Amino acid sequence: MIFRKRSLAVVLCLFPAPCLADEGMWLFTNPPTGVLQSKYQFDVTPQWLEHVQKSSVRFNSGGSGSFVSADGLVMTNHHVASDCLAKLSTQRDDLVTAGFAAKGRAGERQCVDLELNVLMSIEDVTARVGAAVRPGMDAAAAQKARRAVINTVEKESLDQTGLRSDVVTLYNGGQYHLYRYKKYTDVRLVFAPEKAAAFFGGDPDNFEYPRYDLDITFLRAWENGQPAKVQHFLKWSAAGAREGDLVFVSGHPGRTSRLETVRHMEFVRDRTNPTSLNLLRRQEVLLKTFGERSAENARRAEDDLFGVQNSRKARIGLMEGLQDPALFARKRAAESALRQAVLSNPEWKREYGDAWEQVSAAIATWDGIFLPHYLLERGWAFHTELFSIARDLVRLAAERPKPNAERLREYSEAGLESLQQELFSEAPIYEDLDTEKLTDSLGMLEEMLGADDGLVRQVLAGRSPLRRAQELIQGTQLKDVAVRKKLFEGGQAAIDATGDPMIQLARLLDPTARKLRATYDEKVDEPLKQAYGKISRARFAIHGTDVYPDATFTLRLAFGVVKGYRENGRTVPWATEIGGAFARASDHGYRDPFNLPQSWLDRRSRLEAQTPLNFVSTADIIGGNSGSPVVNRAGELVGIIFDGNLQSLIFDYEYSEEQARAVAVHSAGILEALRKIYDATPVVRELTGARQ
Amino acid sequence: MIFRKRSLAVVLCLFPAPCLADEGMWLFTNPPTGVLQSKYQFDVTPQWLEHVQKSSVRFNSGGSGSFVSADGLVMTNHHVASDCLAKLSTQRDDLVTAGFAAKGRAGERQCVDLELNVLMSIEDVTARVGAAVRPGMDAAAAQKARRAVINTVEKESLDQTGLRSDVVTLYNGGQYHLYRYKKYTDVRLVFAPEKAAAFFGGDPDNFEYPRYDLDITFLRAWENGQPAKVQHFLKWSAAGAREGDLVFVSGHPGRTSRLETVRHMEFVRDRTNPTSLNLLRRQEVLLKTFGERSAENARRAEDDLFGVQNSRKARIGLMEGLQDPALFARKRAAESALRQAVLSNPEWKREYGDAWEQVSAAIATWDGIFLPHYLLERGWAFHTELFSIARDLVRLAAERPKPNAERLREYSEAGLESLQQELFSEAPIYEDLDTEKLTDSLGMLEEMLGADDGLVRQVLAGRSPLRRAQELIQGTQLKDVAVRKKLFEGGQAAIDATGDPMIQLARLLDPTARKLRATYDEKVDEPLKQAYGKISRARFAIHGTDVYPDATFTLRLAFGVVKGYRENGRTVPWATEIGGAFARASDHGYRDPFNLPQSWLDRRSRLEAQTPLNFVSTADIIGGNSGSPVVNRAGELVGIIFDGNLQSLIFDYEYSEEQARAVAVHSAGILEALRKIYDATPVVRELTGARQ
Repeated sequence: MIFRKRSLAVVLCLFPAPCLADEGMWLFTNPPTGVLQSKYQFDVTPQWLEHVQKSSVRFNSGGSGSFVSADGLVMTNHHVASDCLAKLSTQRDDLVTAGFAAKGRAGERQCVDLELNVLMSIEDVTARVGAAVRPGMDAAAAQKARRAVINTVEKESLDQTGLRSDVVTLYNGGQYHLYRYKKYTDVRLVFAPEKAAAFFGGDPDNFEYPRYDLDITFLRAWENGQPAKVQHFLKWSAAGAREGDLVFVSGHPGRTSRLETVRHMEFVRDRTNPTSLNLLRRQEVLLKTFGERSAENARRAEDDLFGVQNSRKARIGLMEGLQDPALFARKRAAESALRQAVLSNPEWKREYGDAWEQVSAAIATWDGIFLPHYLLERGWAFHTELFSIARDLVRLAAERPKPNAERLREYSEAGLESLQQELFSEAPIYEDLDTEKLTDSLGMLEEMLGADDGLVRQVLAGRSPLRRAQELIQGTQLKDVAVRKKLFEGGQAAIDATGDPMIQLARLLDPTARKLRATYDEKVDEPLKQAYGKISRARFAIHGTDVYPDATFTLRLAFGVVKGYRENGRTVPWATEIGGAFARASDHGYRDPFNLPQSWLDRRSRLEAQTPLNFVSTADIIGGNSGSPVVNRAGELVGIIFDGNLQSLIFDYEYSEEQARAVAVHSAGILEALRKIYDATPVVRELTGARQ
Repeated sequence: MIFRKRSLAVVLCLFPAPCLADEGMWLFTNPPTGVLQSKYQFDVTPQWLEHVQKSSVRFNSGGSGSFVSADGLVMTNHHVASDCLAKLSTQRDDLVTAGFAAKGRAGERQCVDLELNVLMSIEDVTARVGAAVRPGMDAAAAQKARRAVINTVEKESLDQTGLRSDVVTLYNGGQYHLYRYKKYTDVRLVFAPEKAAAFFGGDPDNFEYPRYDLDITFLRAWENGQPAKVQHFLKWSAAGAREGDLVFVSGHPGRTSRLETVRHMEFVRDRTNPTSLNLLRRQEVLLKTFGERSAENARRAEDDLFGVQNSRKARIGLMEGLQDPALFARKRAAESALRQAVLSNPEWKREYGDAWEQVSAAIATWDGIFLPHYLLERGWAFHTELFSIARDLVRLAAERPKPNAERLREYSEAGLESLQQELFSEAPIYEDLDTEKLTDSLGMLEEMLGADDGLVRQVLAGRSPLRRAQELIQGTQLKDVAVRKKLFEGGQAAIDATGDPMIQLARLLDPTARKLRATYDEKVDEPLKQAYGKISRARFAIHGTDVYPDATFTLRLAFGVVKGYRENGRTVPWATEIGGAFARASDHGYRDPFNLPQSWLDRRSRLEAQTPLNFVSTADIIGGNSGSPVVNRAGELVGIIFDGNLQSLIFDYEYSEEQARAVAVHSAGILEALRKIYDATPVVRELTGARQ
């Protein structure tokens, strides 16, 4: 599942030829008009763009969606909404497994701590941000100055418009855009199928194709206690995508790294990715074994487990790509060509020539703090939501009294409301599961930094990881939202006064964690930003500005053609049919995860077996695009992205249209299932515009 | 499950007090007569010892068992026999899942490549081995001389007696004993219950107690086409163990490390154990995901998966113990006391004083070669049976022409017959599974040694790990036993001539792997042997010789009392009852792995619910003891060991009788199930001595 939770950014179109490929995650302010015109004879108009943009929805939990009715109905993937489903579930009433259908609008259930964003306007603030960083500033000063101006721009915009205002770094600092979002924080659950239908085939079929998943959920944005009235929403195409169609994907790809230098890619291949994979496998084994102990345990671990398995499979696919010498050969050749071009022009050489060495130097510094930075600052060593809460409270107490411009990025005024929604969430925390997670991660801390490390000893306080985790989880009162609110409101004095062991742990760590953060921000992140800014500008200089930036979990437009591919000598079809789901279930003896839900088995005879269920296209997508609408030339919804195939997992580094495909649920298959399996008449009427 | 596959060795009884504990894995030549007499008023006689010794059986696959009839009937654990069950299974006929009951003796099915050993005699050859190592020899020469004399002793004994002859290193070289085994290579499957009964509760209940497992399988040793006639076998006790009984465990504990220095333990805690655990988690995720794809995949991966999960759970338990500062505090105090005692006597100081520094120096060397040694010499990077076969063939061609005394230990004449049985095994090899295993381990090799390492590049030959694994597995002809035989018989010329890619890979690696082996043998293993030999002798000098050596996968006698314990304020009972299995299954909604087999559900009403099913005792056991008979004062079989509880997982380093327990199946529960669930009348008659 191409789902992910945040990140960073840069360019593309290395050679003229691939630029005629269906490549790119384009800015709505800089769409690929040329290739759309020349290759597909499609004129993309401002009206078309505005309509698609304002119909698109971003999930703050990571993922995409779209408005599909004037009454704020939103469609996304089941696996994007599963966080909401899990948080509304209890041992007796498991919405993830059983699905949900609201009885009327009054029966729609409010999601805990979910926020939706709709991009309303884009403003280029590159000049203002650039002006703040004066020549001759060192990295720390440059970073501080940039952070200050960004915080100020965001705060001003928030005050003026009331809209969520984010300054987005594009082209690695080649451009800065101010994105203003309309924010919906009252989001309610309307309809979800059973997980067995949404995630049919489970982990074995994840990132694979052919596929047979009804990976959808409908939510509704509410405003002032009423369903939100929205001007822009996508009209439903009952016929849906057909083979050979030009289609567009409007969504929020999380992160790509297509401009990364070879040295940087090596670091990912040799260090960050293997370390992350070991961590993921560790968590997977923990969550699986926890879940096997009882059905209720399995339910508690399910959402975490899906995320971990999904990342593990994606990263293994990425690793297979990175360990292919052919990819590195292409990247080396491209890097060498670009560097040669830079060296051939004295001005370019002076401006951009040291960028590659600058990346390598930053990577060397990163390498030196890699483990402690991840463990202590990013919190890998403290794998419980309760620690994240404690850290936020400790840092908020220190940051809030500071001027907005000087705060750590995540505590700036503009983001505070969203942060509070997370911090005061009533989402359940399971002490048994969290104790196991914390035990394991504390053990990992000791393994990785050493039992004799001074800070490790202080963290463990003379106990084994198990005893220490029990002490912390049992002892902390942060499980109670009222206690969190009190500590938040009490500020530094309340933090200083509390004996809560989790708060004390966060305080103990904070000086070291902040030091690592500062080193990372100033000596790694900032030089990388500067170096990739140079490389981006070198590419602008050499190839022009008609390129797209790396993904940044902001709205992008991708395009492609609906078509199958060849694999192992066989033709893989452009679409699967709803009848194929039954065939696959039967081939596997209806064994989990190939057990279709009872609702499907009961209604089988009613279904039109040939209805398309899933389909593929050449659109350029990545994690974060989950739930993105697939639209046709007319701006109608013909499907919803939910995955990329295995061959697309290297898209992080390189696009290809030979075998790599984006996988979507077909709009016709969705209607067929809603009508004939789920009797979801109100939703169908709302989608198709039939009278209510 | 306390099951393991081989290993090394040293002492105990650190303080006078614990020596009255039920501690120790005693040699049959040096039993704990004193404590048995003083604490339990039990006189252990030579006749009793001989009878129990010759009734005990060692499994070359790792595990223990015992003769339970005059006709060579052997009882062991289902999980010890599962290797045989898996190798006899096919997609259509899955003996692991379905169980097996032979129809008459002619219907008993021969296990593939299984060898049983019965210890017939023990001879102390310490003086002869010691004489070969002359003072002033350097480590390499000492090691070579010792290996030569050991090979010679074994070869002479084999020639003289025809018995398998192994020189066993005890007390870390404090003593060398020649063990002669009667060997059975025709072993047949008689009866096995379903895995759901044998391993009820699966991984969640593994190493836990209370427990409800019928973890037994009956095999039969055959000789000359007839059931073997054996003089010694254990009489079945129908009443079985009772609370408070003194009981004995006769089996083959694989490895303990109770004499390890603190520095050595730190190395295990910080390096070897975390690395092994990462490897195990990696394999677990791979095998689980492979198995989830289809029922047949699950069957193919099942035996590997059990082994991996079992090791993972054991090592996590061990890690929890090692990360407890209290254990290290006790070990530090004991080490300090011993070193003080050594320093207090000038002769001891001269003889033994440098042992601890010698361990630390060897560990430092080990640390330096740790990863390449494991990856390249121990084969972690080539995770397929086909590579092990290739390596054996390549090395046999080089080693066999050498004089026996100069060969690598595993290719000496005495072990050649057993080795050939493994090498020419018709056990199935699954190309799909092996390709995934090899892909993953080649990827790990690249991660761990680096993509730019010269040998790594040669191994991968310009391909990605996936492509290279496919090429190797598809290309090798070693899947065909006839090809293996031909290469074995053809010797070096055949090896030189073959184009088989797996053989060529093994040849490519051999120079580097042998160099690592030599460094490990000469600079790590040998100095450790010498140092621990000194520590052992220091302990003999200070505390006398009335101590037991660390476990070495050779026959040992443990003893203890049948009794429960206190945990979290509750009393955990000494035994569980057969009715409890049904209650536990019902509590879990009969959800896998708590799904009792249909045979149990069908026969529930016939069963005497109060019959003891599993029970615990304070006996000192460890991995390798799986399948060990539990015998009473009269030498009758009252149960069979199959596990230790979580609290016993630290037994590798330290015995304790507060909560740690050995877990066994009760002889009464076995009879009840055989009679009333399985209608296994012939087996019951054979066990109880009733007329056939």
